[in-house]
Amino acid sequence: MSPTPVTMSSPTAPAGYTWEATSEQVAARYGVAVEDVLRFDLNTAASPPDVALAAVAGGSFEGGLSEYPPSDYRRLVAAAAARYGAAPDELLVGAGADEILDLIGKAFIEPGSMVVIPVPTYAMFRVISEQRRATIVAVPRLGPDRGFALDLPAVRSAAVGAAVVWLCSPNNPTGLAEPSGSIAALLDDLAADARLEGRPTPVVALDEAYAEFVDATLAGLRDAYPRLVVVRTASKAYGLAGLRVGFAVARRELIAAIEPYRPPGSLSVVSVAVATVAFETDGWLGPRVAAVHAERERFAAALRELGWTVHQSATNFLLVDFGSAAEAGRVAEALLSRGIVPRTFGAGHPLADHLRLTVRSPEQDDRFILAARATARPTGPLPTTEDLR
Amino acid sequence: MSPTPVTMSSPTAPAGYTWEATSEQVAARYGVAVEDVLRFDLNTAASPPDVALAAVAGGSFEGGLSEYPPSDYRRLVAAAAARYGAAPDELLVGAGADEILDLIGKAFIEPGSMVVIPVPTYAMFRVISEQRRATIVAVPRLGPDRGFALDLPAVRSAAVGAAVVWLCSPNNPTGLAEPSGSIAALLDDLAADARLEGRPTPVVALDEAYAEFVDATLAGLRDAYPRLVVVRTASKAYGLAGLRVGFAVARRELIAAIEPYRPPGSLSVVSVAVATVAFETDGWLGPRVAAVHAERERFAAALRELGWTVHQSATNFLLVDFGSAAEAGRVAEALLSRGIVPRTFGAGHPLADHLRLTVRSPEQDDRFILAARATARPTGPLPTTEDLR
Repeated sequence: MSPTPVTMSSPTAPAGYTWEATSEQVAARYGVAVEDVLRFDLNTAASPPDVALAAVAGGSFEGGLSEYPPSDYRRLVAAAAARYGAAPDELLVGAGADEILDLIGKAFIEPGSMVVIPVPTYAMFRVISEQRRATIVAVPRLGPDRGFALDLPAVRSAAVGAAVVWLCSPNNPTGLAEPSGSIAALLDDLAADARLEGRPTPVVALDEAYAEFVDATLAGLRDAYPRLVVVRTASKAYGLAGLRVGFAVARRELIAAIEPYRPPGSLSVVSVAVATVAFETDGWLGPRVAAVHAERERFAAALRELGWTVHQSATNFLLVDFGSAAEAGRVAEALLSRGIVPRTFGAGHPLADHLRLTVRSPEQDDRFILAARATARPTGPLPTTEDLR
Repeated sequence: MSPTPVTMSSPTAPAGYTWEATSEQVAARYGVAVEDVLRFDLNTAASPPDVALAAVAGGSFEGGLSEYPPSDYRRLVAAAAARYGAAPDELLVGAGADEILDLIGKAFIEPGSMVVIPVPTYAMFRVISEQRRATIVAVPRLGPDRGFALDLPAVRSAAVGAAVVWLCSPNNPTGLAEPSGSIAALLDDLAADARLEGRPTPVVALDEAYAEFVDATLAGLRDAYPRLVVVRTASKAYGLAGLRVGFAVARRELIAAIEPYRPPGSLSVVSVAVATVAFETDGWLGPRVAAVHAERERFAAALRELGWTVHQSATNFLLVDFGSAAEAGRVAEALLSRGIVPRTFGAGHPLADHLRLTVRSPEQDDRFILAARATARPTGPLPTTEDLR
C-alpha cells in the first residue's frame, strides 16, 4: 500500500459507483461459458447451508407470497437478537447490511455533515456518505506490516466534529480484525473528546460483516459508548448472501433513532422465513466457519508456493500484493480469461497493486490455483485446456 | 371527505410513520387466533399465482442462495420491460415500489425542496418527502362526487417551483383512475409553466401500483414529458407482495439520474427468479384481474345491501364512507374483534370517516360480509359464533 495523506472531499453528487461486472458480462467479454464463471470477488460462500435449502423447499413462508412480511419481522428479530446477544429492541432488520448502512446514513448524516472513513475499507461507506452529501475525511490505515490496522491518533483527530465514523472489523478488503482493545480505546477517546468540546459524540458505525470468522463482536461496547451501531449480515459466514438479510445492533435509543427510516417491508417473506430458521438452528455455523479457516490456510499456502505475496487473513478472503498495478492487472486479466473473477481495485486506489480473492470450496479453489499457476508462467508454453478445467 | 385547504408543512424530522399492526398484534389485542386474522387493510391478493408457487418449488435461483443477485437484474429487467412496453434501460428494479419511491426521493429531493402531494393518497409519499426534509404542499383532491379526482388548477398552481409532484392513478385509497386525458393535460401545463418561468420542470412521480386493474398505463407520456417516472409493482394485481418487487419506468436519462442511488442487490435471488418467471409467463394475469373485478362488484353489492356507502372503485379495494369518524371507528373495532382488519384512517385524516377494504377471495369476503352484518345490528341480539365463522 502506498502511503497516502488524510484527504477530504467536499459534498458532491454521488460518483456513480460502478458495481462488479455480472457473470454474464464476464462470460461475454472473455468468451467463456457463463456456467464456468467463478466469482472470487464477492466474498460469498460456495454453497448455502442445508438448513436454508430445506427451509426453501419446505415452502412455508409466513403469510405466503401474496402477503407483505410482518412489518416488525418479529420472529427473525427474536432469532437474530438471541444469536447476537441483544434484546429484540436493540436490533433492526435490513435488506442486507447495505440497507442498514443506508439507514444509518439517513438517520445521522445531513448534507455537509463530516464523516470519517479509515481507508481502504468497504466501498459502500463512501457511496452512502456521498449520497448524503457529507464531507468525507479519508484517513489512511497503517501498512501491511501493521496488519492494515487503524491509525488511532489520526482517526481520533479526524473525528473531531464528525457525525459518523465508519469502521469495519475484521476489515474488508484487508482481512484482519483490529488489535484487541483498540476500538474500545478509540471509543473512549472519542467520547472524552466530545465531552471536553461539548459536542455530541459521533455515531460509530462498526461493520462486523466478517465477525463470525473471528468469533468475536464488539457490540458489547454499546453500553460504554451509546452511539455505537454494529452492523451484521447473513451474507458471509452464514452463506446466505442471496437472501439479502442484515442487521443493526445498538442500544435501544439508537435503534429508535434509525427506526423511522426503516421501510416496513424491504425483505421478502422467503428471506424472512429462511433466515429465521437459519438463525434459530444450532450447530451448523461453527463447522462452516472452521472449514473456511482450514481452506483459507490451504489456499493461501498454495498461492504462496507460486511466489504470491498473500497477506494474513482471519476471514473468508485473501488480499494478495502483486507489487505493481500493472502486474495485478495482468494477473486479473489472465484469470478473467479463464472465467475466474478476482476483486480488482481501480487506478488510484491504495490497493491498486493488489487483488482480493474469496476463499471458496476446495474444488473451486483448486481451479483457481491451476489458473494462477498458468498466469505465473506467462513466457512459458500456453496452458492447455486440460490444465485449466 | 371534509374540504381542507392546501396546506404546507415545513421540513422536520420524519414523523415516525407507524405501520399497520401485525397479525400477531391484532390476534393478541382482540383475543383471536392468529390464523383466523384476515387482512383487508393491505390490498394484497388472497393467494399468489400458481406460476410463482411452481417457481419457488422448482428451487432454481440464479447463483443460488449463497450468491448475490446479478447487480443488473438482467433477466428480470428484460421480462418486466417487455411487459411494460419499455426498453431495458428505461426500467429500474427496486425492493417493492416503496424502494422506488425512496430512490426517487434520493435522486430529486434535497432538504428544503418543495414537493406537491394531492391528498388523500398513498401515505409513503409524505414519509419519503419528510425523510428528505422537503417542504410538503398538500393539495386536497376533489370530493367523492368527482371521484376524488385531482384538482388540476390547484395542483398546477402548487407545482410552481416544485422538485417533485407525487401522483397516484388509480389513486389509493380512493380507488379510481384520473379521468382520461387529465394527467396528460396537467403535464403539458407543468411543462409550459416551467418553460415560461425558466425553471426546471418538476419530476412527476406517478404511482401506478393498481394500473393492471384499469388495463392502462400513462408511461407513454414520458416521451412528451421527459421528467415523468412511473412506478409499478408486483404486489397488487400480480399477487406477489411477499416478494417485494417494484419498478420505475422512465426515459433513459431519468433512469440514469436515479441509478446511482440504486443499491446493487436489494432483492433476494428468490424474488428475482420468481418474479422473472411470473413476468415472462403469459395468460395468467388477465383472468386474475377479471376475477378481482367480478368479486369487487359482488362484495360491494353485498356491503351496499347493509346500507354501507361504498364508493366506486376500479381496483382491488373499496372505500366505504361511514359518515362519521366515530361510526367508522365503531365498525372497525367490531370487525377487529372478529379478527378482520380494515384499513383505518387516523383522526384528522380527510378520510377519517372511512374504512378501506381489500377485495380478497369470495370465501374471505363472505366472512367479512358476515362480520359486517353483525356490526350493522349493534342493538339487536349478539351474533352467535356460528354466524361469524
